[in-house]
Amino acid sequence: MEDLITCVEEQPQPPSSLPNSWTNQHSDSAQRTDEEPKAVGGFVLVHAGAGYHSESKAKEYKHVCKRACQRAVERLRAGALAMEAVAAALVELEDSPFTNAGMGSNLNLSGEIECDASIMDGKSLHYGSVGAIRGIKNPVLVAHRLLSEAQKGKLSAGRIPPCFLVGRGAHDWAVAHGIPPCPAEKMATKFSLSAYKRNKRKMEIAEKMDTPENPMKRRRQSSETENGSECLDTVGAIVVDQEGNVASAVSSGGLAMKHPGRVGQAAHYGCGCWAQNSCNSNPYSTAVSTSGCGEHLIRTMLARECSVALQAEDAHQALLDAMQNQFISSPFLASEDRVLGGVIVLRCCRCEEDPPSQDLQASLVEFLWSHSTESMCVGYMSAQDSRAKVTSGRLGACGVCWFFEP
Amino acid sequence: MEDLITCVEEQPQPPSSLPNSWTNQHSDSAQRTDEEPKAVGGFVLVHAGAGYHSESKAKEYKHVCKRACQRAVERLRAGALAMEAVAAALVELEDSPFTNAGMGSNLNLSGEIECDASIMDGKSLHYGSVGAIRGIKNPVLVAHRLLSEAQKGKLSAGRIPPCFLVGRGAHDWAVAHGIPPCPAEKMATKFSLSAYKRNKRKMEIAEKMDTPENPMKRRRQSSETENGSECLDTVGAIVVDQEGNVASAVSSGGLAMKHPGRVGQAAHYGCGCWAQNSCNSNPYSTAVSTSGCGEHLIRTMLARECSVALQAEDAHQALLDAMQNQFISSPFLASEDRVLGGVIVLRCCRCEEDPPSQDLQASLVEFLWSHSTESMCVGYMSAQDSRAKVTSGRLGACGVCWFFEP
Repeated sequence: MEDLITCVEEQPQPPSSLPNSWTNQHSDSAQRTDEEPKAVGGFVLVHAGAGYHSESKAKEYKHVCKRACQRAVERLRAGALAMEAVAAALVELEDSPFTNAGMGSNLNLSGEIECDASIMDGKSLHYGSVGAIRGIKNPVLVAHRLLSEAQKGKLSAGRIPPCFLVGRGAHDWAVAHGIPPCPAEKMATKFSLSAYKRNKRKMEIAEKMDTPENPMKRRRQSSETENGSECLDTVGAIVVDQEGNVASAVSSGGLAMKHPGRVGQAAHYGCGCWAQNSCNSNPYSTAVSTSGCGEHLIRTMLARECSVALQAEDAHQALLDAMQNQFISSPFLASEDRVLGGVIVLRCCRCEEDPPSQDLQASLVEFLWSHSTESMCVGYMSAQDSRAKVTSGRLGACGVCWFFEP
Repeated sequence: MEDLITCVEEQPQPPSSLPNSWTNQHSDSAQRTDEEPKAVGGFVLVHAGAGYHSESKAKEYKHVCKRACQRAVERLRAGALAMEAVAAALVELEDSPFTNAGMGSNLNLSGEIECDASIMDGKSLHYGSVGAIRGIKNPVLVAHRLLSEAQKGKLSAGRIPPCFLVGRGAHDWAVAHGIPPCPAEKMATKFSLSAYKRNKRKMEIAEKMDTPENPMKRRRQSSETENGSECLDTVGAIVVDQEGNVASAVSSGGLAMKHPGRVGQAAHYGCGCWAQNSCNSNPYSTAVSTSGCGEHLIRTMLARECSVALQAEDAHQALLDAMQNQFISSPFLASEDRVLGGVIVLRCCRCEEDPPSQDLQASLVEFLWSHSTESMCVGYMSAQDSRAKVTSGRLGACGVCWFFEP
């Protein structure tokens, strides 16, 4: 099968009803470049979190997003399926000491690193997940291995293989399946340790202010200092391969100063990531990865909600509506003062309308993102591109890809 | 507010397309008894699991279902909201040494007990959950406490309170919040220990048969012996209180011989239980609790799917369709040879059509259950009843309640 890809880039306008949310606008009048058809198809979109990105970290985030895109595209060019490519992207994102995933993750209340990660295969609809796992450099590889093992069928004595493991059990399962343990001192970085000390001081000050006469003062003041900080930079990726299969993954160190054992959306089915190939009832294949406050993303099941919404005709409007109605204004979060999250999504379908050439059947891939946080770092790359494009902050380039099949 | 309840009981016919599934049939022609109006409203429906219930256990299950209903109704009569009543029912179910929840739970591969439990409040839409927790007699009380603490708002330094804790962290949080630890030797029972030894022998035999030449023989044989056994008896309850608030809860020791750290549907949002009061977009308040194979229930999000389906006009047909299309024939479980699960559901709405008296506004409560397993033990009771009704196996009484408000 020979495919070619043409990228269309647009500078979207922010919708007035949804500040800080940016999605692409795909229209029939979009201009397309005149690149020659090439051999390999596929597309990857990654994120390094929705939250506040300081200038010093933004540059590093852009670099790691680029590298993650390149790793995924290398796998796609080598003929890998979406699942393998998405895992490769996640490993690169986790390995950065600057992201809140794998090495360099936020420390919890006890000064330890506990990670969540999950992965979903849109072709088999299998899913693997780990929560509150310690001492593993790449939690996504454990999730990936859980998924692969479950695909092999039942265990001895008819036992059903697990799709979700947590804590010490998850760590031991990983090591028993050949994934090497990583000492705690190698998981923490200079940056994560100094953030822990800073957060601990903030907590001590906040708790001193916590008098029976004035509990609200503590809560209001503290929410201003903490929630907009570096604690929301979960990472994730979504991929469509040459065959049109989709896959998604997400990985997170969780909220800074979380209670030990706390599991966030990155390990929660339907909340951290979602991938589903098209089927009789769904014309579009969809893939979604989320970032933000885990509790908000769990209680709204944002990944799955976005996937469902993206079956509507207008992807751009569907994502805006999902973010506004299913997340920002969700009755499940009515008591929250700020709702913090972001998503990257893609969808693709066989599309015979308006392809650049009438001789070829086309697969249209639309990719979008949206966030309620101050910024979101996103990178993307097609298997045809020589390098990835990245954007951080309020402005971003988004686009549409076409795959052509002979 | 003075309420009265009238119960209608029907013997449903099994739908030909869904063997071993039983739901109520509510029709306008249903006969109602002529009981006098009484003061307190509310209704509870409990289950002791969908699976195979041996004759020896069935009697005990019926007893504990009756006691659980009575505990919930006692709380309702004392003016408690649905949340408190559902937790009281769950404590009774967990405390039985015969159920696979709390004390007497299945042992895992290492011979330890790790429990999952969750609870959801339809009024606030808050949710609390614990996974793979050890050494706590009543895991549902930890889930309940997590929910209550989250409802109080942010923690010091603006930290968002957790809704889901696992493993050692969950245990330590529970103890720090006044829930006493329970020694491991008190969690196991004579029954659970002997089941562990029996399962271990089965595994050893199955693994001896596992030659590279014949791996399928091992899997097929073993699935016949194990999956239909005592490993599916998760417990749960759903309640509607006098004010029309709904709540749901579920608790499980998980699959026998599971890997340590494995978390099943009982701790998974949208999969083990669901409760949602009516709102602008949903005319019905709904509550759901599930039982069965955790991995199947997670991957189909059965609790939430049933809740969504129950917004259709015909609850009976909606539940049948949800069980058939979203579970038994779900594309998410296409590779499974048997799909194992059951649900109890209730829904209620303000209904002015066909009430027994034209002078009063009525709330109609419909309760139903359905399962793909060989049997399911269910108990139910209204706040007006002097004792609970229970059913186990393939035949069950189901019904409809009316609440009347002056």
